Amino acid sequence: MFIGVTMGDPNGVGPEIILNSFRKGETGKDFVVIGDYQVMDFCSRLLKYQVPLKKIVNLSQWEKGRLNILDLGLLEEKDIEIGKVSSKAGFAAQKYVERATLMALDGKVSALVTLPVNKKAIRLTDPTFTGHTEFIAQLCGQSNYAMMLTSEKLKVVHVTTHIPLTEVAKFIKKNRVVEVTTLAGEAMQMLLGRKPKIAISGFNPHAGEDGAFGREEIEEIIPAVEEVRSKNWEVAGPISPDVVFLEAYRGKYDVVIAMYHDQGHIPVKLLDFEGGVNVTLGLKIVRTSVDHGTAFDIAYKGVANIKSFVQAFDLAEKLSK
Amino acid sequence: MFIGVTMGDPNGVGPEIILNSFRKGETGKDFVVIGDYQVMDFCSRLLKYQVPLKKIVNLSQWEKGRLNILDLGLLEEKDIEIGKVSSKAGFAAQKYVERATLMALDGKVSALVTLPVNKKAIRLTDPTFTGHTEFIAQLCGQSNYAMMLTSEKLKVVHVTTHIPLTEVAKFIKKNRVVEVTTLAGEAMQMLLGRKPKIAISGFNPHAGEDGAFGREEIEEIIPAVEEVRSKNWEVAGPISPDVVFLEAYRGKYDVVIAMYHDQGHIPVKLLDFEGGVNVTLGLKIVRTSVDHGTAFDIAYKGVANIKSFVQAFDLAEKLSK
Repeated sequence: MFIGVTMGDPNGVGPEIILNSFRKGETGKDFVVIGDYQVMDFCSRLLKYQVPLKKIVNLSQWEKGRLNILDLGLLEEKDIEIGKVSSKAGFAAQKYVERATLMALDGKVSALVTLPVNKKAIRLTDPTFTGHTEFIAQLCGQSNYAMMLTSEKLKVVHVTTHIPLTEVAKFIKKNRVVEVTTLAGEAMQMLLGRKPKIAISGFNPHAGEDGAFGREEIEEIIPAVEEVRSKNWEVAGPISPDVVFLEAYRGKYDVVIAMYHDQGHIPVKLLDFEGGVNVTLGLKIVRTSVDHGTAFDIAYKGVANIKSFVQAFDLAEKLSK
Repeated sequence: MFIGVTMGDPNGVGPEIILNSFRKGETGKDFVVIGDYQVMDFCSRLLKYQVPLKKIVNLSQWEKGRLNILDLGLLEEKDIEIGKVSSKAGFAAQKYVERATLMALDGKVSALVTLPVNKKAIRLTDPTFTGHTEFIAQLCGQSNYAMMLTSEKLKVVHVTTHIPLTEVAKFIKKNRVVEVTTLAGEAMQMLLGRKPKIAISGFNPHAGEDGAFGREEIEEIIPAVEEVRSKNWEVAGPISPDVVFLEAYRGKYDVVIAMYHDQGHIPVKLLDFEGGVNVTLGLKIVRTSVDHGTAFDIAYKGVANIKSFVQAFDLAEKLSK
C-alpha cells in the first residue's frame, strides 16, 4: 500500500521538500502526494529539479519511477503567492489533509506523512480550525491521542501540548498519564521490536521533592506509574525533569513521558532541531509529521532542510507495518 | 584577597572535590576552605591524596602551597558517617556557609564558592532552612536575587526557581522580569567585557502564539522587554521556549532569561551535566556554587567529578575582579 504525503501550504516549503527528497532518492517506499499538480510542477520547474511528475486522479493510475500527485485541482500556478499567508492556500492545504485522512481511514493509504500547514491561512476560511493534529483527530472521531516528538537520540511523548502553561496541571491526571504512557509503550514496542524502557518525568522542579514544590507527583503521577507497572510495562519515575532527558539521551530509557509541551520540546529540539519528527499516537491511522512550520521566509528557494521529512517518512513506514 | 570555599556536607562529595582539584592544580587563585580540618584530613588520608593541608584559625596564618582550612572545629573524625544524612553534618555544613557569608560581607574573602549541603540534614537542626541560596540571601539581608545556571555554551538566568509549577505564573511580572534581565545583563557584561546579547524566553508554548495559549507574554513579558530595551540593553523576545535555547547555544545570544526552573535547567543540564555552575546574581557578595548535590552514593570514593567545582571557582574569580 502507498504512503500518503500531504503537500502542505502551497506557499511554504512543503512542495520543494517533497521534490528534493524524491530526486535525492531519500524516500523509501512508494508514496503518493495529495495536493495540487500545478503547484508541484511550478516548484519543480522554478528550482530546475527536473523531477518526473505524474498527475493522477485515482490510485490505479499510480506509476513507478515517478512522483505521483493525486491532484485535487484546487489551485493554479497563478494562485501561488510564495511566502504569503493566503486564504486560497490555506483552504487548499486543509483539503489535502482532509482527503488524505479519509483515504487513510478507508485503508487506501497505509499511513500519512504531513507537510506543514499555516494555521493563520486556514483560519481565514475556517475560523474553527485549532490545529493540524486536532483536525485529523476530529476526522477520525477521536479525542484521546498524544504527541510523540522524536529525534535520533531522544523520544518524548507529551501528556499535554498546546495549552497555556497555567492550565497544564488540570490535565496531569492519573488516567491521562496511564493512557499516554501506554500509547508510548505500544509505539516504542513496534519501533524497537521489544519492551521499551519508559521514564516518566515529574511535573514540578526536582519532581516536587517529596511534595515540597507541588503535589502532582504524589497525587497523580506516582499512582499512574504504579498502574502502568502493574500492566507489565517497564517504567521508572517520576524523575526530576532536569535529569530524565539527559538519562534517556544517554541510553538509560527508550522514551520519556513529558508533562507539557516545552518540557519535551526543549530537549528534543536542542538535540536535533532539523531532524525532529512529530508522531500522533492513539489515532486509528498512522500519522507522522515534519516538526517545522511553513518557513515562508525561505520558501521556493530550494534551501529547506529535508531531514525532518525523510525521517518522518521512515517512521511512518515502520509504524504502518 | 582569598576566595572562600565552603566544604559542604561532611558526609558528601565536597571534601574530596576540593582535595582532588587542589592536587590536580585545577584551582587558580588563592583560596581558603571554610570547614572542618579533621574531615579534610581524614578524606585526604582515606583516598591517599597526600595533599599538604594546613589548619588555620584566622587568615593571617594562610600559607602558600598548602590547602588552607579555616577550621571551625565542629566535627571530629569519628563524627563522619560517609553517605549518611546526619544532624551533626547538617549543622556543621550550615555553619560553614554562615561563617563564609559573614566573611564575604566583611570583605575578608572576595567571593564564595559553595560545595553542596544536604537540605534534609540541615533541617534536622534548623527546620526553617529552605535552601542554600535562600540562607545566604537572608544573611545578606536581601530578597531580590536570581539564579544563573551556566555551562560552557549556554547561560541561563531564572525569573523563578524552587516553587511549584502552578505558582510560577504569579511571579511572571513585568518588574521581576526587568529586574532579572538587568542582573543578567550586568553579570554578562562583567564576564564578556562588552554589552551582552540577551534573549527573553516566553512562558507558554510558542511564547503564547499571540495570546492563543496564554497571555503572560502580552501582559508582562513584552512590556518588560520594552522597558529593558529602553535602558539600552540589547534584548530580544519573548522567543518560543523550544527555540530560544538552541539559538543561544548556536551563538545568537549570550544569555537567556528563563521563566521557571526546568525551562532553564533542562537545556543547560542536557548540554553539560557535569560542568554546570550556579551563580547567585544580585547579592552584595559574589557567590558561585557547584550544580550538583551531595552525591552520598559515591562519597569518599574519589570518583566525584571536579569539573563543576573548577568552573565555579573560575567564575567566582572572574566575577570578583
